[in-house]
Amino acid sequence: MKIPKAIQNLIESFEKLPGIGPKTAQRLTFYLLHVPQYELDKFASSLTQLKTGTVICSNCFTVGETDPCEICEDESRDQGMICVVEEPLDVLALEKNGKYKGVYHVLHGRIDPLNNIGPDEIYIKQLLDRVRQGSTTGITGTTGSTIKEVILATNPTMEGEATAMYIAKRLREQLAISNLPRGKAGKQLAISRIGRGLPTGADLEYADEVTLQRAMEGRSEI
Amino acid sequence: MKIPKAIQNLIESFEKLPGIGPKTAQRLTFYLLHVPQYELDKFASSLTQLKTGTVICSNCFTVGETDPCEICEDESRDQGMICVVEEPLDVLALEKNGKYKGVYHVLHGRIDPLNNIGPDEIYIKQLLDRVRQGSTTGITGTTGSTIKEVILATNPTMEGEATAMYIAKRLREQLAISNLPRGKAGKQLAISRIGRGLPTGADLEYADEVTLQRAMEGRSEI
Repeated sequence: MKIPKAIQNLIESFEKLPGIGPKTAQRLTFYLLHVPQYELDKFASSLTQLKTGTVICSNCFTVGETDPCEICEDESRDQGMICVVEEPLDVLALEKNGKYKGVYHVLHGRIDPLNNIGPDEIYIKQLLDRVRQGSTTGITGTTGSTIKEVILATNPTMEGEATAMYIAKRLREQLAISNLPRGKAGKQLAISRIGRGLPTGADLEYADEVTLQRAMEGRSEI
Repeated sequence: MKIPKAIQNLIESFEKLPGIGPKTAQRLTFYLLHVPQYELDKFASSLTQLKTGTVICSNCFTVGETDPCEICEDESRDQGMICVVEEPLDVLALEKNGKYKGVYHVLHGRIDPLNNIGPDEIYIKQLLDRVRQGSTTGITGTTGSTIKEVILATNPTMEGEATAMYIAKRLREQLAISNLPRGKAGKQLAISRIGRGLPTGADLEYADEVTLQRAMEGRSEI
């Protein structure tokens, strides 16, 4: 028995998604056969409108509804502190607890030579320009308007670490060459890396060697 | 930061699927942001066409492209042997190896009182009618045209076993009351249950008690 074309098409669409194999794709498709048509239509229209209904902020490159995005336009946030992340999802994760009061810069990827992704494929140049211009929103003079700190919050993977090191190197070069505007406190630009160590709730016994080493290096006084 | 409406809508659609939680739904949605628009449109159209492009066979209730379906119309198959399964996916699983040469009857569920699904909610009545009429395709006289065997291949779960027992009981009642047409061999209708025991590649040590008991009961001479 051949699988009907309409079913086969949907199975193939599901299979293209990350982490969904042939069995799961089949299961999802046959589940949807029992769902009313208006639910399917709603699902379909949210798919087609996914990209037309969103826009990438021309300042920080996160995905939002407006350009510049909500965060870049928010005057109550510290526009002089930029947190550099790999993906828009990372912004959501950091925004969830609402403790961070700076702004973001989304790279949309990481330097990954094995997958042919070099520094020019992701938004590193735009970050360097943004730091050089010293203005985060384009509306000069709203808040501090000069960048005081860049927090490199790429993932603590091999590629994420390499990306962070590359960006730090490029920022220091730029700092040495040009007359970078100095922050309010008169200090030079601070470049930091997000803290690495044991996650809350973890068990020391089961932590891997590199994590333990990072945790020891990143110890703080209490 | 609020999640853009277009993204939120798609996350909610994904979350409704079985086995997909909030985190996976987010991950899938943000993955699709990097996919070209024509791929999204293709995905969307296969969703809307899922139900319009398929039809349920009025004889065996499987999902196919024609009514009656390919299997019910196939004269080379034994129309006198009906394999009763819970879902259309089960038909695909059994068809994959191509060894079974009979036809099917899809119940579209199982008797499950905890979820308010009684015998009338699934296609049991239609199975009883089909066996009584003795004709499987509606085109009388094509093949044997009387039912010789009903194989109950519902899942070996609590609900599946109960469904199989209920159907067997109802078939025997029907057999006693009406003059059910007898098969070619002159034998009465055979009612069987799919074999239960240890699956191929399993480890006796890790099998649960019920499976082991079923495997002992279902032993066969070699």
